[in-house]
Amino acid sequence: MAAEEAAVRAQAETVRRLKQDKADPDEIAKEVTKLLEMKAHLGADEGKQKFVLKTPKGTRDFGPKEMAIRERAFKAIISCFKRHGAEVIDTPVFELKETLTGKYGEDSKLIYDLKDQGGELLSLRYDLTVPFARYLAMNKITNIKRYHIAKVYRRDNPAMTRGRYREFYQCDFDIAGQFDPMIPDAECLKIVHEILNDLQLGDFVIKVNDRRILDGMFAVCGVPDSKFRTICSSVDKLDKMPWEEVRSEMVGEKGLSPEAADRIGEYVQLHGGLDLIERLLQDPKLSQNKLAKEGLGDMKLLFEYLTLFGITGKISFDLSLARGLDYYTGVIFEAVLLQQENEHVEEPVSVGSVAGGGRYDGLVGMFDPKGRKVPCVGVSIGIERIFSILEQRLEASEEKVRTTETQVLVASAQKKLLEERLKLISELWDAGIKAEMLYKKNPKLLNQLQYCEDTGIPLVAIVGEQELKDGVVKLRIVATREEVSVPRESLVEEIRIRTSQC
Amino acid sequence: MAAEEAAVRAQAETVRRLKQDKADPDEIAKEVTKLLEMKAHLGADEGKQKFVLKTPKGTRDFGPKEMAIRERAFKAIISCFKRHGAEVIDTPVFELKETLTGKYGEDSKLIYDLKDQGGELLSLRYDLTVPFARYLAMNKITNIKRYHIAKVYRRDNPAMTRGRYREFYQCDFDIAGQFDPMIPDAECLKIVHEILNDLQLGDFVIKVNDRRILDGMFAVCGVPDSKFRTICSSVDKLDKMPWEEVRSEMVGEKGLSPEAADRIGEYVQLHGGLDLIERLLQDPKLSQNKLAKEGLGDMKLLFEYLTLFGITGKISFDLSLARGLDYYTGVIFEAVLLQQENEHVEEPVSVGSVAGGGRYDGLVGMFDPKGRKVPCVGVSIGIERIFSILEQRLEASEEKVRTTETQVLVASAQKKLLEERLKLISELWDAGIKAEMLYKKNPKLLNQLQYCEDTGIPLVAIVGEQELKDGVVKLRIVATREEVSVPRESLVEEIRIRTSQC
Repeated sequence: MAAEEAAVRAQAETVRRLKQDKADPDEIAKEVTKLLEMKAHLGADEGKQKFVLKTPKGTRDFGPKEMAIRERAFKAIISCFKRHGAEVIDTPVFELKETLTGKYGEDSKLIYDLKDQGGELLSLRYDLTVPFARYLAMNKITNIKRYHIAKVYRRDNPAMTRGRYREFYQCDFDIAGQFDPMIPDAECLKIVHEILNDLQLGDFVIKVNDRRILDGMFAVCGVPDSKFRTICSSVDKLDKMPWEEVRSEMVGEKGLSPEAADRIGEYVQLHGGLDLIERLLQDPKLSQNKLAKEGLGDMKLLFEYLTLFGITGKISFDLSLARGLDYYTGVIFEAVLLQQENEHVEEPVSVGSVAGGGRYDGLVGMFDPKGRKVPCVGVSIGIERIFSILEQRLEASEEKVRTTETQVLVASAQKKLLEERLKLISELWDAGIKAEMLYKKNPKLLNQLQYCEDTGIPLVAIVGEQELKDGVVKLRIVATREEVSVPRESLVEEIRIRTSQC
Repeated sequence: MAAEEAAVRAQAETVRRLKQDKADPDEIAKEVTKLLEMKAHLGADEGKQKFVLKTPKGTRDFGPKEMAIRERAFKAIISCFKRHGAEVIDTPVFELKETLTGKYGEDSKLIYDLKDQGGELLSLRYDLTVPFARYLAMNKITNIKRYHIAKVYRRDNPAMTRGRYREFYQCDFDIAGQFDPMIPDAECLKIVHEILNDLQLGDFVIKVNDRRILDGMFAVCGVPDSKFRTICSSVDKLDKMPWEEVRSEMVGEKGLSPEAADRIGEYVQLHGGLDLIERLLQDPKLSQNKLAKEGLGDMKLLFEYLTLFGITGKISFDLSLARGLDYYTGVIFEAVLLQQENEHVEEPVSVGSVAGGGRYDGLVGMFDPKGRKVPCVGVSIGIERIFSILEQRLEASEEKVRTTETQVLVASAQKKLLEERLKLISELWDAGIKAEMLYKKNPKLLNQLQYCEDTGIPLVAIVGEQELKDGVVKLRIVATREEVSVPRESLVEEIRIRTSQC
């Protein structure tokens, strides 16, 4: 069996290599078929006992502690989206395969397809933007401000400690509609600013650029039209690679002239604020290019609005920002954390981008039968990276996270009081009190008190024979070990008062 | 092209029929291949212009209105789960294919598989129970009370008006651990009772049975051991089919003796409460069967606890309740709505089961390498059917649902005040006020007021030249058309006070 498994692994490696080398598709297909047959044979022989107990590669479970952190982060994000008047929508986790086709450029290979089991060909959504555009076109909506928080799927190389997963949440806020320039765009940046401030992730900068400025820059640098997209992809790598490597990719792999590359090299190291915009508006070459001029004009307007919002301190107009996706048409932006707050973190995580977005005025039109356009601008919060930071920070701190909201444990002091506990807890539940009890007939009082210590339940309502006779319940405050006798009829009120304080 | 499409449809019909008739697998495979080839050919010819703008079969989008309803229902359910002290977890949307294998009996054919793109073989989750059991075994958790609200996937025949989808939410609450009998089981029923009461869906009954009673009954009726599961599936159809049809399935298709079937027929029409349990405990045949006796003993205990909870009025011990899934081992239950509240609904929806669950003591052991068991009991709320009812009810009522929480619209009375609006709205956002403005440079006041009427925004903060000079903002109350001058520095407080009232 081990030998067969090794053979399957070797075959899988062969397939991987052929794919990497972009070998003849027929040859790849042949080897894939062979691999599938070997796998099927192995599976049939294997029986039930050989069972791998894990989640799929690049995914993870969220246990109660992780969920507590996740819900805190979501709460901050959702209240920001609602503060800006957004509605909320949801779409299916999969779309018709053709809905996603031709929207993601080079990244399309990372899309998860479903098996053809008869019926439609389906793929898991790759982001929330394309489903949003499909939703707008399908329902002929020309005007909406909405958020959408859901999982998306990418067959990427996972790097889980850095918060890069194959299944991950996106938190998207988008404004669709024909409006006066840069007002919704400015609001998107304000939202990123508010959320990153609110989550207290440390210092950050929001880089801003415009696809029209990039395209104009490529044109004046002498990049042929046909190479705009692929050179844009190269520029996009500047946050991970030094200029020299990016330059050699442009010239070596992509066949750009060294002169054009060098001209690009001069522009992409520029970053600044209103002053840089003004300077580039005077740039003898760029100012002659219609697209660049438009982009720079709008960038100036954007910075004026951001000044009114009081957030230009964290905004950097950065000519090296390109963003990978094909569908952007105007302003693009990306928020990057500048440093770790090291005081709470033992091992600093490398995080990078935590939010990004931009304007995509053509995407909805790709879905509309008549090509009617709906201009859109939006932002996506990269919440997984934020989770990673919050988790590590909590791990390093001494803070104990409660994973339930239970206000009171219903306990008994003696044996044979299960019925009385059931009656009391039922009264409490019906009154809206969050209450638990141990699922044992005759639990020891010590065990019941210990359970409260372990889970952070602040109160214990103890029934005993004497209390039952007297029509009272003994209420114990776990933190102070104080005990008070409370008449049964005022127990609910007493619990409410005491837990609104703690 | 139309002819080719018709040919594909005809071929698809052929495949469907062959599958239905359980034809020779080789023949089916041959016809499926043919179908796939025809589809591929059609697809290749089609080009981009023929584009279907839809969500996949059996799925739907949730627009802002539907989301508002969905969030209301979730809120009621989550607060019940939290009231009972549950933690929350989440798991990936897909699992290793083998994790799901052998857990769902005849329903396994409804599982969505992902395409083999190299790497692990994956399937979309079919329910939340199997992933939960996998999670427990993987993390060696022997003790937890958790809820999980997420989408699950079934390649079933959709019936969307009745709330039956291929992608749908489940809201699960489960208690795992070795406890004294029937205490967690009773809590699950209490939870169903609380939620259905809280959602005000009309009258309902929760049917209860026990797999051990069913198995004991099959044994004393003379069903051979090997036929227990399949006869159980037949009994499960009694909520949709009359007894005569179920009987003929048992005898005709499944080869049960007519005498055995008739004996089953007598039992499965029984339903009642404690009295029926007592009677069956005296039943000369059932009382001799060890399994049935155990089941009936526990059922009696369950009813005693439910009496303490005060909810037996809605509980019916029903010998015809079987539940389809393979993994149940003890108590099973299902909540059914009894009638529509017709006063608000124009066209009554047929809904049926809105919650179900039971005890599954063996499932976690199937995942544990050493077969260690973790007893579990849980309930799943069938939220899609509940959405359908709530949506139809809202549709029929005159109630206007707000889809945002915006407190105030920042408006201007004259032209050229965009900058002033941006400054004011930024102040409000920073103070935590939910505020919107129109994305126009110079919107008409009338349009701004109309927007508030349309979306239900209760307040308008109007800036005008005179107000700016006086350091005030005019606050208009949309409902009453009243207008008051508010000093700029107390605007936030004024908005808070006024919107906490409305």
